[in-house]
Amino acid sequence: AQNYRITLLPGDGIGPEIMTVTVDVLKTIAKQYDLQFDFTSVPIGGAAIDETGEPLPAKTLETCRNSDAVLLAAIGGYKWDNLPRHQRPETGLLGLRAGLSLFANLRPATILPQLIDASTLKPEVVKGVDIMVVRELTGGIYFGQPKGVFATETGEQRGVNTMAYTDGEIDRIAKIGFETAQKRGGKLCSVDKANVLDVSQLWRDRVTQMSEQYSDVELSHLYVDNAAMQLVRDPKQFDTIVTGNMFGDILSDAAAMLTGSIGMLPSASLGENNPGVFEPVHGSAPDIAGQDKANPLAQILSAAMMLRYGLNQPQAAKRIEQAVLQVLDLGYRTGDIMSPGMKPVGCRGMGEILIQVL
Amino acid sequence: AQNYRITLLPGDGIGPEIMTVTVDVLKTIAKQYDLQFDFTSVPIGGAAIDETGEPLPAKTLETCRNSDAVLLAAIGGYKWDNLPRHQRPETGLLGLRAGLSLFANLRPATILPQLIDASTLKPEVVKGVDIMVVRELTGGIYFGQPKGVFATETGEQRGVNTMAYTDGEIDRIAKIGFETAQKRGGKLCSVDKANVLDVSQLWRDRVTQMSEQYSDVELSHLYVDNAAMQLVRDPKQFDTIVTGNMFGDILSDAAAMLTGSIGMLPSASLGENNPGVFEPVHGSAPDIAGQDKANPLAQILSAAMMLRYGLNQPQAAKRIEQAVLQVLDLGYRTGDIMSPGMKPVGCRGMGEILIQVL
Ligand SMILES: CC(C)[C@H](C(=O)O)[C@@H](O)C(=O)O
Ligand SMILES: CC(C)[C@H](C(=O)O)[C@@H](O)C(=O)O
Repeated sequence: AQNYRITLLPGDGIGPEIMTVTVDVLKTIAKQYDLQFDFTSVPIGGAAIDETGEPLPAKTLETCRNSDAVLLAAIGGYKWDNLPRHQRPETGLLGLRAGLSLFANLRPATILPQLIDASTLKPEVVKGVDIMVVRELTGGIYFGQPKGVFATETGEQRGVNTMAYTDGEIDRIAKIGFETAQKRGGKLCSVDKANVLDVSQLWRDRVTQMSEQYSDVELSHLYVDNAAMQLVRDPKQFDTIVTGNMFGDILSDAAAMLTGSIGMLPSASLGENNPGVFEPVHGSAPDIAGQDKANPLAQILSAAMMLRYGLNQPQAAKRIEQAVLQVLDLGYRTGDIMSPGMKPVGCRGMGEILIQVL
Repeated sequence: AQNYRITLLPGDGIGPEIMTVTVDVLKTIAKQYDLQFDFTSVPIGGAAIDETGEPLPAKTLETCRNSDAVLLAAIGGYKWDNLPRHQRPETGLLGLRAGLSLFANLRPATILPQLIDASTLKPEVVKGVDIMVVRELTGGIYFGQPKGVFATETGEQRGVNTMAYTDGEIDRIAKIGFETAQKRGGKLCSVDKANVLDVSQLWRDRVTQMSEQYSDVELSHLYVDNAAMQLVRDPKQFDTIVTGNMFGDILSDAAAMLTGSIGMLPSASLGENNPGVFEPVHGSAPDIAGQDKANPLAQILSAAMMLRYGLNQPQAAKRIEQAVLQVLDLGYRTGDIMSPGMKPVGCRGMGEILIQVL
């Protein structure tokens, strides 16, 4: 059997319960595809702060580095919201991205026919929406220097962050954008604010230059404000979107919400010489934590993305994705995606049914 | 009669035609409310580039400064898209904002019952939506220094922009936010990215501090990615939003598009010791320019905002706004808001009907 070391980062809130269910699913898949998973669970975020005082203990990062893939659930919660920045759960997440050089974040926003009514948009507007947002994840304003709050000459405070990209940073994410578009509908939309920002003009120039190597991909450019509008106006026009860290944060969440069911959306964060991190788009939902109410499907679909992008096991990935659709076809729904006439289940129940289907 | 000097900036694309119609409307209103308008029309954007080589000639800015209010239509077009940045139409707009210190941009996003079907969102989701986005307009990443494209030690290029806010800049826009909320539904949502950005943490701290002076306003905070989601998920939860320049650019456009009819939305840009600038949210639509197809109503509603916020003539403003609703009730529609059973009209036709109604 092919052996994989998987680091589990259950994190906070509903993280541990959706992770438990997902590990059970992976164990079932392992038997069917002759795989072997060695799971190591380590703390991150609030859980790590409580245990060690730090949101990303050195041992956690080390364990991630030494594995074949990392499965992350969710981090954060009210409890840690007022700590200083270097001790916040989010800082652990940013540290993980930087520590593993995960420069490419893939965020699909797909409308499932079974859940089309969950969207706040009209069915004819969202039917068939299938967008992949490729977001740069280790550069831009999230990491640019200088940053901080400084005293000015007049004694005022001045908060500063720097949005910066080098040629090389743009080129490597643009490449992922073009390659992703090639494997999908062949259309790439690059989003920037080149009419105002110098860094965006460089972004646009580099992406345009690179497009010469991808004659099979149809490249377009949108300003970020217009992109936000177009996502609401006619999301079907998009296939693959490539953009920087901040714009990607905003647009991928907007795109996700078009589906109306963010409890269903996975994501992948990939680097070059390190394992990828796979996690749901939704947060840690502290208000329903520990009540067996959480929807584990985004976590399970993140495990599928791990199999596909992290471990090169596309068949096993596909099997999980199909099983999720089957469970929906059978009418099972957690609270967040419940609709009249469907069968309500909890987090564990959803996992059990999925395993039966598998 | 009360006398007002109005600077007209018709700009590019459909700008001149919607401006012509709006001036006619203002002349009609002037007679009814015993006002007198002295109109001076000067070039900006592409039109100014063609005439003088610059998007904001000194004379244009000077004329604006010496007036009581500025009515702007729209700027930009394919023709000028590839000029160097300092010669772009947008640069003229940014120069106008900076030159008049227009730090507060008010962008309403209101669903009109007559046009609710124009929204891509379900009617029950958008019915009654009435959001005011208060966007900071002369600071943040739009104007922060340093900026530019620099050579790095390794010979790579590095594009840089700086997102910066001082206490004073945050306080003055926050004040507008609180005061706007007071006059509306009493709810203010401040949007930032304080979990990642130092400048946003300062923003959040100052806004929170100022809230002590506005005990009648209910303040909440959202991260920008979540705000983008919430606008799509449940826009009715918002009353007044206050945010920085870049986040405001994105969110006000997303909010505008929720209505499905951005041809209807006006905006106001206000400073302290200078005339305000009033302009529609939509762009210059070069593809339909000169064809008498443009919807002049956003420009006309911008003139109403001018009467209310710039000239303190709220009654005249209200009269225009009511007349616009009446025209819609009568079933007249330009192409952008056309729906079955309604009466199609062009730009001039819409203006004529509105004047009849007045
Ligand atoms: C939690 C936060 C730091 C993070 C981000 O902004 O990247 C989150 O919003 C995300 O999109 O993964
Ligand atoms: C044209 C552009 C510079 C401008 C901006 O980004 O502010 C526009 O998008 C707006 O919102 O008024």
